[in-house]
Amino acid sequence: MHKRIEVCLTPALLHLYDIKESIVVVIDVLRATSSIVYGIDNGAAGIIPVAHVEDCMAYAKEDFLLAAERDGEVVKGYDFGNSPFSYTKNKVAGKTIVLTTTNGTKALHMARESAHQVVVGSFLNLEALCDWLRAQNRSVLLLCAGWKDQFNLEDTLFAGAVVMALRKDFTHFDDSSVAAEDLYRLAKQDLRTYLHKSSHSHRLEQLNIEEDVKFCLQLSICQAIPVLKGDILVAIGQSR
Amino acid sequence: MHKRIEVCLTPALLHLYDIKESIVVVIDVLRATSSIVYGIDNGAAGIIPVAHVEDCMAYAKEDFLLAAERDGEVVKGYDFGNSPFSYTKNKVAGKTIVLTTTNGTKALHMARESAHQVVVGSFLNLEALCDWLRAQNRSVLLLCAGWKDQFNLEDTLFAGAVVMALRKDFTHFDDSSVAAEDLYRLAKQDLRTYLHKSSHSHRLEQLNIEEDVKFCLQLSICQAIPVLKGDILVAIGQSR
Repeated sequence: MHKRIEVCLTPALLHLYDIKESIVVVIDVLRATSSIVYGIDNGAAGIIPVAHVEDCMAYAKEDFLLAAERDGEVVKGYDFGNSPFSYTKNKVAGKTIVLTTTNGTKALHMARESAHQVVVGSFLNLEALCDWLRAQNRSVLLLCAGWKDQFNLEDTLFAGAVVMALRKDFTHFDDSSVAAEDLYRLAKQDLRTYLHKSSHSHRLEQLNIEEDVKFCLQLSICQAIPVLKGDILVAIGQSR
Repeated sequence: MHKRIEVCLTPALLHLYDIKESIVVVIDVLRATSSIVYGIDNGAAGIIPVAHVEDCMAYAKEDFLLAAERDGEVVKGYDFGNSPFSYTKNKVAGKTIVLTTTNGTKALHMARESAHQVVVGSFLNLEALCDWLRAQNRSVLLLCAGWKDQFNLEDTLFAGAVVMALRKDFTHFDDSSVAAEDLYRLAKQDLRTYLHKSSHSHRLEQLNIEEDVKFCLQLSICQAIPVLKGDILVAIGQSR
């Protein structure tokens, strides 16, 4: 079997890929998938990604934490948004979180439609994720959530980090995986400095969340691999 | 006015860009836009890009050269396809060519729908194109034709070459233009070797057109800038 690694640079290109037999890794490193990884790693029982802010509100009566982010900011009236500092042990352990974000949750839903399996990646769980992907006998699609269907640098760099880690274990690479890997090799000595070139970085600076960005660029500080089971993200291997 | 340079990595993302006031550069360096540039530079009166092979045939009764390529090969019964060696002076000078290709002509038609102006770029006219773009007071979208809506390396590298040449003259760059420029900087010492990593390169090797590829990767050997006037590409500045 020829195991492929492909990088889908934005959700707007997902229809070009045949993912029925593939594992799809959803990537929205600033900040949704970093916070999801960190939250699951800190013992959250599960995270339910929903598409719209109103969908989130539908869960308000139950014992859920409600997290909603739009255009980089916490939606008024919600417990929190997608800052990783809201997903610490004392806040999330044992809890179920309902989460909606600008890009990441949309990508999760799109992937769920047709993928064999959907997991969540970020720099925080890079090594654990790659070890796990290596052990599966499946092709992998790295799905960058981007910014409103546009290509972005930070998600592409993470995809490149995965490609670099898995290059020896896969046989087929598409052009976008080659590009992503080369960009990661350029950037990896100092991801934060490299990302100063990016448009999203400027957007984030305006939101005054530099500490979030630094946090999200840490490599492999978490072991958790969130996997979509039905409509909820749980730690892989965890039964529900 | 903030002049922007943006790179649209595939035609499937074109709807994300507002190009009403922009110059769109259509890029399909292996091989459609290289051959178009070379043909116009060699005195072709004009090149009419058409979407379908059948559209091409509709011009058969007139004194046109008919060029049709699908999946990298000349369509049976046509004068030629998109090999640049078919666009030499003795073949095309004074002639009008009707051309359909897998990716490039589709991108030209899509751009025409809404752009202020549509021109054609390739490594062959890199310097002339950049000089001309620098002299216009307009934002620029570099539209990579890609391969069947997928990202490809060769068109992205050319976009990066244009971004690098124009960096000082523009104020706003999107993430894909940053990525394209960095990839070009990595590859520029030896484009052919770099492109051995690409999927399209392997496709082209199978088609036995290595000489075409080498030809298309020459820098700035042509002065012509083909521009779309109505439904026909002519040399810029040329009146019809």
